[in-house]
Amino acid sequence: MTLSETAATISPRSALARDKLMHTAERLYAEHGFANVSIRRIGEEAGQRNKSVVQYHFSTRDDLIHAILDRHMAAIEKHRISMVAALGEPGALSLRDWITCVVQPSIEHHIDLGTPSWYGRFLAQTVVEPTLREYTIQAHLKMPSFRRIEELGYPYGPDLDRELVVQQGAMIRQLIVHMSAELEADLASGRADHAAAERSWRRLGDNLITAIYGLSSSLLGERR
Amino acid sequence: MTLSETAATISPRSALARDKLMHTAERLYAEHGFANVSIRRIGEEAGQRNKSVVQYHFSTRDDLIHAILDRHMAAIEKHRISMVAALGEPGALSLRDWITCVVQPSIEHHIDLGTPSWYGRFLAQTVVEPTLREYTIQAHLKMPSFRRIEELGYPYGPDLDRELVVQQGAMIRQLIVHMSAELEADLASGRADHAAAERSWRRLGDNLITAIYGLSSSLLGERR
Repeated sequence: MTLSETAATISPRSALARDKLMHTAERLYAEHGFANVSIRRIGEEAGQRNKSVVQYHFSTRDDLIHAILDRHMAAIEKHRISMVAALGEPGALSLRDWITCVVQPSIEHHIDLGTPSWYGRFLAQTVVEPTLREYTIQAHLKMPSFRRIEELGYPYGPDLDRELVVQQGAMIRQLIVHMSAELEADLASGRADHAAAERSWRRLGDNLITAIYGLSSSLLGERR
Repeated sequence: MTLSETAATISPRSALARDKLMHTAERLYAEHGFANVSIRRIGEEAGQRNKSVVQYHFSTRDDLIHAILDRHMAAIEKHRISMVAALGEPGALSLRDWITCVVQPSIEHHIDLGTPSWYGRFLAQTVVEPTLREYTIQAHLKMPSFRRIEELGYPYGPDLDRELVVQQGAMIRQLIVHMSAELEADLASGRADHAAAERSWRRLGDNLITAIYGLSSSLLGERR
């Protein structure tokens, strides 16, 4: 079921139950890990009496996880679309602008979510679990804003070692996903100051942009 | 039970069974994920008829996972100890030497393991799962070779923003762990050339060192 089909065909009460299940699943998975949370417990903690409620709304655990992912990606996509639209012409794109368009939308999304949030730790698990990894990566890469960034072209130009570019892309992805999960965990545990959460997210965003700028320049050479 | 107690007190036959269980668990976890592999299945696929064989040898799933981790870390530690011993005096330590001592030992360990291996994907899951994350990070940081690297001092000197240094350390850890898991998965699936595995590992090591050099210089400033 796609998001639009869902909205068109299910009742408000059913939509509410789905929503509650998704939030509960995300929280439990983030706090305890995929391996330590059963489908049945998700239904129970979402206050549903029917023991097959998750199967009824989502068929399988993976469908439930995909639905949670899709919703966050749609929210991040909105941020990225507006950032990409504000970019100049391809030739004028700086490396720092390019990196900012990759990093900042998910930082803004984390700020929108408030504290505590669970998405960061949830996402880190989906990119690591073998059965979910490919779906997660492909779902991100097929977003229109990412395709637009591709059309604009990587600011270093086309004459680069393809394998090195792929590895650089993977490094950027690992840093964004796993550093966000780590800050989220620190905020949730009180190790990072709850009241200064937005400032912590912005600082992480700035540090990621600076780090990825250095990493990219070092790996692919300075801009020609 | 520590590794040395294990060696001193259990029979050869029992040690063999433990070994088989650890290898089987690592492989199944790497290929299917923690969430999709039961303790019972590990015993079965290790060819054990007793349904409680894992509990008998390891008490809990976490103890089993810790035992697998400890064994790999001991092997990596051997590589790092000899690299650290070959370093010059603290004052002479270059940033590239420092990064090489952090990155290269786990690359050498992956080459020792051969192809296919499972440790990389296994480790990536332990640093992401909430109940295992802290153990995994602490187990690495308390290794004597890491303490020795600390004594030698970070080559940028002591007058740095502490929070930035911690974040840089976390970025380095994420890159090593998750990029290794990704290459291992590519080698296992045939997406990367099996016959050229050692070359791929060495290239990943070189790229990580180059990337981390750029990341560190960009984040903490050029060397004074």
